[in-house]
Amino acid sequence: MEKKDQGPGIQAGGLSHVRQGADGSESHMVDVGSKPVTQRRASAAARVRFPAGLLPAIRAGSGPKGPIEEVARVAGILAAKSCGDLIPMCHPLGLDWVEISFHDEAEDCLEVRCTAACEGRTGIEMEAMVGASIAALTVYDMTKALDHGIRIEAVRLLEKSGGKSGHWRAP
Amino acid sequence: MEKKDQGPGIQAGGLSHVRQGADGSESHMVDVGSKPVTQRRASAAARVRFPAGLLPAIRAGSGPKGPIEEVARVAGILAAKSCGDLIPMCHPLGLDWVEISFHDEAEDCLEVRCTAACEGRTGIEMEAMVGASIAALTVYDMTKALDHGIRIEAVRLLEKSGGKSGHWRAP
Amino acid sequence: MEKKDQGPGIQAGGLSHVRQGADGSESHMVDVGSKPVTQRRASAAARVRFPAGLLPAIRAGSGPKGPIEEVARVAGILAAKSCGDLIPMCHPLGLDWVEISFHDEAEDCLEVRCTAACEGRTGIEMEAMVGASIAALTVYDMTKALDHGIRIEAVRLLEKSGGKSGHWRAP
Amino acid sequence: MEKKDQGPGIQAGGLSHVRQGADGSESHMVDVGSKPVTQRRASAAARVRFPAGLLPAIRAGSGPKGPIEEVARVAGILAAKSCGDLIPMCHPLGLDWVEISFHDEAEDCLEVRCTAACEGRTGIEMEAMVGASIAALTVYDMTKALDHGIRIEAVRLLEKSGGKSGHWRAP
Amino acid sequence: MEKKDQGPGIQAGGLSHVRQGADGSESHMVDVGSKPVTQRRASAAARVRFPAGLLPAIRAGSGPKGPIEEVARVAGILAAKSCGDLIPMCHPLGLDWVEISFHDEAEDCLEVRCTAACEGRTGIEMEAMVGASIAALTVYDMTKALDHGIRIEAVRLLEKSGGKSGHWRAP
Amino acid sequence: MEKKDQGPGIQAGGLSHVRQGADGSESHMVDVGSKPVTQRRASAAARVRFPAGLLPAIRAGSGPKGPIEEVARVAGILAAKSCGDLIPMCHPLGLDWVEISFHDEAEDCLEVRCTAACEGRTGIEMEAMVGASIAALTVYDMTKALDHGIRIEAVRLLEKSGGKSGHWRAP
Repeated sequence: MEKKDQGPGIQAGGLSHVRQGADGSESHMVDVGSKPVTQRRASAAARVRFPAGLLPAIRAGSGPKGPIEEVARVAGILAAKSCGDLIPMCHPLGLDWVEISFHDEAEDCLEVRCTAACEGRTGIEMEAMVGASIAALTVYDMTKALDHGIRIEAVRLLEKSGGKSGHWRAP
Repeated sequence: MEKKDQGPGIQAGGLSHVRQGADGSESHMVDVGSKPVTQRRASAAARVRFPAGLLPAIRAGSGPKGPIEEVARVAGILAAKSCGDLIPMCHPLGLDWVEISFHDEAEDCLEVRCTAACEGRTGIEMEAMVGASIAALTVYDMTKALDHGIRIEAVRLLEKSGGKSGHWRAP
Repeated sequence: MEKKDQGPGIQAGGLSHVRQGADGSESHMVDVGSKPVTQRRASAAARVRFPAGLLPAIRAGSGPKGPIEEVARVAGILAAKSCGDLIPMCHPLGLDWVEISFHDEAEDCLEVRCTAACEGRTGIEMEAMVGASIAALTVYDMTKALDHGIRIEAVRLLEKSGGKSGHWRAP
Repeated sequence: MEKKDQGPGIQAGGLSHVRQGADGSESHMVDVGSKPVTQRRASAAARVRFPAGLLPAIRAGSGPKGPIEEVARVAGILAAKSCGDLIPMCHPLGLDWVEISFHDEAEDCLEVRCTAACEGRTGIEMEAMVGASIAALTVYDMTKALDHGIRIEAVRLLEKSGGKSGHWRAP
Repeated sequence: MEKKDQGPGIQAGGLSHVRQGADGSESHMVDVGSKPVTQRRASAAARVRFPAGLLPAIRAGSGPKGPIEEVARVAGILAAKSCGDLIPMCHPLGLDWVEISFHDEAEDCLEVRCTAACEGRTGIEMEAMVGASIAALTVYDMTKALDHGIRIEAVRLLEKSGGKSGHWRAP
Repeated sequence: MEKKDQGPGIQAGGLSHVRQGADGSESHMVDVGSKPVTQRRASAAARVRFPAGLLPAIRAGSGPKGPIEEVARVAGILAAKSCGDLIPMCHPLGLDWVEISFHDEAEDCLEVRCTAACEGRTGIEMEAMVGASIAALTVYDMTKALDHGIRIEAVRLLEKSGGKSGHWRAP
């Protein structure tokens, strides 16, 4: 049966999802079948930055505490569960946990954090990144009528554990 | 038949997706049934920032030109088409066009831009924002093995046209 | 081009989605292409019935007001938008509005109502029925740890308007 | 790495999916990572009640036996498999089996039963509840042209086994 | 606002979904915003070919008439409705009709035909092609235990109408 | 708890997904809960056949190498991961690997091959068949403007391994 060929298919330039085919570089999905099953956990964050003065006004009114955060949490959790449908080279994973939380980061900034956990053969960084991103985009959607200049910043991995590469924490 | 009640249901603090219910503020979807159908267009962008020196090395090798950009483009287009499934309060829209393009922004930065167009009763900013975000997350997924400190920055609306509020362009 | 044959394909026993084929009755989707586009609106409801005394206790605590209702609302809205993916013979529709609200029905009963609206060639009863059902199932999911005997009752259409059959209201 | 905090995050009022956050109660998904993997099975049912005399007439004609039941079965099986996409706080599960069957319950009532089985860390009640509900809604969709007053009743769990709480059977 | 650039973006070699970008050819989705809305219809077919003698035996037994055809019909209709989620460069379309029918083609061959109709700005060939393919794959899935050598042949467009290119019929 | 009844529910005519119910044959999903978990692998192929002379012209121009193949690869991988949502009686599976490759088969024919691998209780032939089919349909979509007579041929299983039936290779 066709095996992941080792000759021409060697990974190109260290990129895990690109390899040299007969006619140039091409994308591919990593075969994780021989990796051990371990406990995996990853946390990511995204910041929603509001124009000066807008977030305090929202906080004094009806949001984002309450409905906006709940809607964004659900959107983020559902998106994390659908990560394998959204990010083409991601493996479909059975998640044990997804948590979305909201944190006040300075006067004009709301931070969304997403932690995901599973037992599997590959990392779940993308589940956490997608969960944080879609939750932040939902906050944007529900506040953009106030100012279209609201933006999402610093979507980034905070920490991950499990697997061969072990524990990684953002500097 | 139950109408969007105007009394207690007035929008809370200018937030289009929150209103005051009998027991406190609650989320709601905007009824766009009485808005006119117009040509809508929106562009958004997201930046993928690489640790110093990494992107030039990738460019000298097998990416992100070629496979990575094509995979990210497809992911972004599919996500823009699924926007109504991802962002809870978004209306499902029949898109006429989605375009994802990649731009070199300084030595360590790749910018993803997404433009979406449709004829409809409500704006398509979220389709453009989601398309740019998922395309950028796909670039992250396909390069993260090189450095988990790659991050996505400045997911923002660039421009929108159509509808009552007319043409808006980011300052 | 193959037309919806009128001979053997006549609807069986008044059932709109069954017709007589050459080898027996078979399912089919109704061709709505020649129906006029009109404003459509439909409301449906589902009741979540709790074992005696449980709902007052929940109300005195942390739910279902607040998080549970917001999560159920989002689930119901998303499901209404996905109706054409869930109910095989339903036409995919672009919704203008979905509203999910919660009503106290007697001491042990929470009623979920869903109203959907669109401009289209076919009714949106199923969008309202699916929205109410999935919202009620979400309430069940988030309270079932208290008692697995909670049940959903009386999923039913309340009212519909638009289209040839006009306004219908449950007796 | 961020842990499911035990202090303020204690479950609110016994509700498994609500906890007390810093700013009030909020929804959350249960972390099942430390639960043992066991064989899980759950059965649920939903009743479709027809106005007096209608179901016997349908039975004498072309349904619901045959096409309607097959279409409803497929809809129910697919929905059970998608349960984690529909019910926000549900874990995505790899099902080993889904069965949808139809039972005559009195003259005016068709009962839909759904049984789901998997090997996993958490129960699959929701998969069975969702499968039965969507199958019943599909029967409604395919018969509603005869009478919009058809309704779905008594969506309820019949039985479940596996996991810490063991075997439960509806009284 | 960024327009579909006409200079470097000219379609490459007549391929509607490829254009020359600054760094080589790249995929793109066609902008159909300026095309007129017309009635569209398309029919496609796929043949399921069985090893000699197998299909007559199945026909003498419990299939494929009945359950297998109903399950395949539902799968094909649902897939046609999801075409825009499956085929990346396809526009999401609101279908007015999808029909799946089965035809005996010689002793060892079952033909699946799918017709789709909508009112829109672009053709629905892909909806018909995807509907026929997934229905045929479902027949394969439900009969493959008898012989894995069953295969699908001749997935092809039969006819299409509507739009600038007018009526086309397979030779 | 309701068991897969062995009496009337015996599989009909050797068809794994059809059984005799009280009122005739009906579809059902196989219960794989008692099957052992083994390494599973399957390869399938689909051929895209072009009218004489067309493919060499495309090859001399901008495709299908490059963008078209990358877009088709992504579509095929995503479809293989969604197989359980598309093929009703398929079990949802967590894939370890999906590979889509393209091969020149004679002057007028492009062959798409898809290999899928997982560790599970049931085969993944359908994942490979669906992946190859949707990738081939995407090639069709992106070239059909040149000639609607392009067709897909010979969607077939090439090989499978794992499970009780062991290694199977197409003759």
